Amino acid sequence: MKNASGSRIEQALEVAVESCESLGCPPRLAAAIRYAVFPGGARIRPRLCLAIAAGCGEAQSALAEATAASIELLHCASLVHDDLPCFDDAEFRRNRPSVHRAFDERIALLVGDALIVLAFQNVARAYAQHPARLQGVVLALARAAGAPGGIVAGQAWECEETTPLEEYRRLKTGALFVAATVGGALSAGVDPTPWRELGERLGEAYQVADDIRDVLGTDVELGKPAHRDAELLRPSCVNELGVAGAVAHFEALIRAANECIPDCPGAEFLRDLLDLEAQRLLPAALLERVAA
Amino acid sequence: MKNASGSRIEQALEVAVESCESLGCPPRLAAAIRYAVFPGGARIRPRLCLAIAAGCGEAQSALAEATAASIELLHCASLVHDDLPCFDDAEFRRNRPSVHRAFDERIALLVGDALIVLAFQNVARAYAQHPARLQGVVLALARAAGAPGGIVAGQAWECEETTPLEEYRRLKTGALFVAATVGGALSAGVDPTPWRELGERLGEAYQVADDIRDVLGTDVELGKPAHRDAELLRPSCVNELGVAGAVAHFEALIRAANECIPDCPGAEFLRDLLDLEAQRLLPAALLERVAA
Repeated sequence: MKNASGSRIEQALEVAVESCESLGCPPRLAAAIRYAVFPGGARIRPRLCLAIAAGCGEAQSALAEATAASIELLHCASLVHDDLPCFDDAEFRRNRPSVHRAFDERIALLVGDALIVLAFQNVARAYAQHPARLQGVVLALARAAGAPGGIVAGQAWECEETTPLEEYRRLKTGALFVAATVGGALSAGVDPTPWRELGERLGEAYQVADDIRDVLGTDVELGKPAHRDAELLRPSCVNELGVAGAVAHFEALIRAANECIPDCPGAEFLRDLLDLEAQRLLPAALLERVAA
Repeated sequence: MKNASGSRIEQALEVAVESCESLGCPPRLAAAIRYAVFPGGARIRPRLCLAIAAGCGEAQSALAEATAASIELLHCASLVHDDLPCFDDAEFRRNRPSVHRAFDERIALLVGDALIVLAFQNVARAYAQHPARLQGVVLALARAAGAPGGIVAGQAWECEETTPLEEYRRLKTGALFVAATVGGALSAGVDPTPWRELGERLGEAYQVADDIRDVLGTDVELGKPAHRDAELLRPSCVNELGVAGAVAHFEALIRAANECIPDCPGAEFLRDLLDLEAQRLLPAALLERVAA
């Protein structure tokens, strides 16, 4: 959750993506994999993973970097598949055409598949000297990504006649935040159980901030069209609580997250980082628009 | 490659699929995952994996069963995604509507994603007591599935202006056969290196048999429309060599596969199985149609 962690994440993602480009990968697939991963968004999930590993006492761990990168690869895969015409039919992502618009639908389908595979391959390579930790990390990634409790299952709730809203959000947003806290602890060789709740609360806070940004932000700030929740009649915390109520809810969630940080060498460091992250998710300049 | 192995594979697949259905999986996703896996086709890749493990001296290994199931899950995932409208637009598979026809395109997309994740999750669960073997198995699965050298990359060659035919087939068909031989050896705790070549040769033989069956078989025998290679102008070994030439090529590949079986406790058993498998791939009754 600081600049140094940012470059470690980009470097770890670079290593993973490069491994796809060697040995005669079909050129359009290779280009599209890179396009889907770079340049990234806020990289909030991998930054969280690195912060937790550091909080657990592993400040410079190659294992944490690989775990963080794999979590981001799963996130990128879900964005590419969610943007496809059969789901959101999104034309833009991160201020550029989405992958299926920049390439085509077939390539976008395969990019998502390749990134899911790469996420597992990447940790398997990195944990060569720590086989006992690999199993937990693979299971944490799989649980967050697949069915019944991961982002794929979350997305599948859009295909049912009725969608249980809390469950939908818990899976679509919360699952990878839990993977980030649990994965950070696992990479440090620490029991991940007490770290789950922190991931759940931060995932919820992130979703609330996302709802608020959709209302207050501009297309350029978001990297995609703003006000889509209202257009698509998507459930939004702002609809339920109003902007001021949603902001209060966000702040309460951040406080709750702060309070559930487990005892660890870097607990104080993590509390400071969470406050910084909260300001980053909902900058004061954005909130001033409520009054305007 | 006998009936007993068949029921062990179905049981291992059942365990994997059931793990997706618990804990409130969206019902249509759960039903579609099951539909994509059961009833299966010939299960040739997982049977090969079990046979190699048995040949290496692990006749009743739960590790081999899980590895075999994961290879089949990756195969099922690739069938579901290849059948989608943006690729083959296939209406039928295994004598039933394809997944996107029986459910819808969105569900089929998510089923493929979920099965890829499940393949890795399934081996991670099974290898809990053998962490040192898990890394190799995850890497073998990922290499066979992803980019640059797996089935995703093979499928991506369809999206290029020119497709290098041998490479395309090596990745689309051969990669999972290599995963089967390598995975079987790894599950038995044996160095997998000498087993790669056997997988490559069997994958090639299988592809030739597939080309021949497409010409000689009926829709019902194939579980999908026959004669599609000619209709779609797909490259086919029969086009290049004629039916008789293709059959001779197939027989030469099976002989070559037989000759490269590494020294192992069950080498003789494996040679007998390969001959049986060859007759199963190209039954005498089918070949009689050449003359008719």
